[in-house]
Amino acid sequence: MSKIAIIYFSGYGHTEKLAAAVEEGAASVAGASVIPLRIPADGVIEDKTWDTLAEADAIIFGSPTYMGGPAWQFKKFADESSKPWYGKAWKNKIAGGFTNSATVNGDKFNTILYFFTLSQQHGQIWVGPAQLPSNQKEHGPEHVNWTGGFAGVMAISPADASPEEAPRKGDLETARLYGERIAEYAVRTRDVVFA
Amino acid sequence: MSKIAIIYFSGYGHTEKLAAAVEEGAASVAGASVIPLRIPADGVIEDKTWDTLAEADAIIFGSPTYMGGPAWQFKKFADESSKPWYGKAWKNKIAGGFTNSATVNGDKFNTILYFFTLSQQHGQIWVGPAQLPSNQKEHGPEHVNWTGGFAGVMAISPADASPEEAPRKGDLETARLYGERIAEYAVRTRDVVFA
Amino acid sequence: MSKIAIIYFSGYGHTEKLAAAVEEGAASVAGASVIPLRIPADGVIEDKTWDTLAEADAIIFGSPTYMGGPAWQFKKFADESSKPWYGKAWKNKIAGGFTNSATVNGDKFNTILYFFTLSQQHGQIWVGPAQLPSNQKEHGPEHVNWTGGFAGVMAISPADASPEEAPRKGDLETARLYGERIAEYAVRTRDVVFA
Amino acid sequence: MSKIAIIYFSGYGHTEKLAAAVEEGAASVAGASVIPLRIPADGVIEDKTWDTLAEADAIIFGSPTYMGGPAWQFKKFADESSKPWYGKAWKNKIAGGFTNSATVNGDKFNTILYFFTLSQQHGQIWVGPAQLPSNQKEHGPEHVNWTGGFAGVMAISPADASPEEAPRKGDLETARLYGERIAEYAVRTRDVVFA
Repeated sequence: MSKIAIIYFSGYGHTEKLAAAVEEGAASVAGASVIPLRIPADGVIEDKTWDTLAEADAIIFGSPTYMGGPAWQFKKFADESSKPWYGKAWKNKIAGGFTNSATVNGDKFNTILYFFTLSQQHGQIWVGPAQLPSNQKEHGPEHVNWTGGFAGVMAISPADASPEEAPRKGDLETARLYGERIAEYAVRTRDVVFA
Repeated sequence: MSKIAIIYFSGYGHTEKLAAAVEEGAASVAGASVIPLRIPADGVIEDKTWDTLAEADAIIFGSPTYMGGPAWQFKKFADESSKPWYGKAWKNKIAGGFTNSATVNGDKFNTILYFFTLSQQHGQIWVGPAQLPSNQKEHGPEHVNWTGGFAGVMAISPADASPEEAPRKGDLETARLYGERIAEYAVRTRDVVFA
Repeated sequence: MSKIAIIYFSGYGHTEKLAAAVEEGAASVAGASVIPLRIPADGVIEDKTWDTLAEADAIIFGSPTYMGGPAWQFKKFADESSKPWYGKAWKNKIAGGFTNSATVNGDKFNTILYFFTLSQQHGQIWVGPAQLPSNQKEHGPEHVNWTGGFAGVMAISPADASPEEAPRKGDLETARLYGERIAEYAVRTRDVVFA
Repeated sequence: MSKIAIIYFSGYGHTEKLAAAVEEGAASVAGASVIPLRIPADGVIEDKTWDTLAEADAIIFGSPTYMGGPAWQFKKFADESSKPWYGKAWKNKIAGGFTNSATVNGDKFNTILYFFTLSQQHGQIWVGPAQLPSNQKEHGPEHVNWTGGFAGVMAISPADASPEEAPRKGDLETARLYGERIAEYAVRTRDVVFA
């Protein structure tokens, strides 16, 4: 089995919902096993989380965009990943990322760029969603990639929308397809020998 | 008078419309004179454009976001600005920026970051829109900063919308307020002696 | 007096030394009073820190670059600044930033971009170092802006160098000049009325 | 054979030299054939260049960093790649990037981020250098990844150094290893079926 780890922080439940959609997509792929890992509010990462990540074939990063970047709890995780970094433990693992915030654009791209930057410090292989956008007048939040991220999945949850209401249909479907894509890639490249 | 130059490229007219809104806002400020400078399709910058920029108190950058960054015509202008860069000719001039693209997010933030990066190579002072976003369920393209840029003005023009149809009301008003803000700042700091 | 706050995190003392150089430069300006605020290792921000920041004319951000971005302790501070953000309490305050890391390039630019992104969410005015680089063959770590940042001050402290050894002369002088520049700008624009 | 295309611009020959090192590394891999494609000074891309790119398994991007981003000639190429973008013609092709500039840091990271952004609009798979940095006191330009890029290869050519003198030994070796890595990955994943 190819192991897909999803390590994410969620403050109010919207990013959790996005993570669940990525998980659903990844789990639908034959030969893939998915392990969601939610970073707690105090940012403390358990030892076994690091063990799980060390064994994963793909590590997908997720966080809300707070003040133009990933939540500090995610950054604390990233800072502590200097240990596997030093030992090149994540080299060649597949990477990807997703984020959510209330504002339509809201500098979300910066969070995705951070995930990418982190992945490259680790020597990972970045696989993005590869989705063209739904960008015509008739399109709205119910269409795939209307939000319009390219390097990772971006979702919009209006400031007064509960996790039951948002992210909306299109964003969740984009996330589901992304999970599927990463898992497919992990399964297809599983037997590739690459140092 | 404080001189506000707006140097921009527009491919199909949508960014032109955004530039016009920035211009309208800046021109409404007592003591400000505004000079719009459209970069032509062949990217050739006239000598007098450089003279105008050398005399400006503020230089506002504008371009559509094409393939995740400013149009090449704008980048050609930026590359050629290495001459005033070398002579520190734009040091301490106020800077700002705006962009438009079809996709909702569409990596527009990257274009604004490029404008900022360029301004900082020149030693300029960056003044952003300073607008909180309209990010509740009831908000839409008709509200100020629904698109939700912070570092510069971002606008959305759906792929099948003409310049008559888009950018829409909220984006244009955000651009107008931004022009006003930059011109106000230029006028208020005109007599400040700063080397 | 113009109040210049320097809010920063330092893990091993190198960024502390850079902060001290910024402080020295700012304090050398007539009419400027400087308040250094070090974020503790547990990331807990005291109430009076927020009060000090609310009263400042300029807020300068500082952090090491860890894993391609600011340290989590800084990000925690940034996340908690959503309260003054919501109330636009930092609007029009001057902003700037500095960072240090062991590797020559080391994605330091990403940390400066984050500081800028944060400042723009707050509606601040960004003032960079405005230093041309020392980029000829004869130049080295002892020259001003050899490290070559434009949007903020970047410093290099090799992985095996103590805070007594690094950041080196050129980086410290770049930082000192930057503190001076920001304080000058704060003093010169103190009586400017701008809403 | 796996086809590795290197599409790059070089203004004065330094980036050309870096491209040659990437080519040398890629060509040393059994089963890889490398096609260097230099963008001319007028930015005009020949039709057969697009054909070559359409058939490539990997597309590596290269440009000097001019004024904080890729040269306009490269951006013109990127803008014109909207045609293969629209048809998803580069989806799942491997991507990578390299840049050179005179200043040590010089905002080079921004150019690499642009290459990444472009690759993700195309749905490509990003493979970075995966090199730890040489960041101790004893290290210098002759050591691998002393310059210290993670997401792509960064090189330093002092402003008064000819292409015979720079990029220097360490940067060229970093580029050679990167070409080797990308070609290895292309060869190993050649038979992977992935839509």
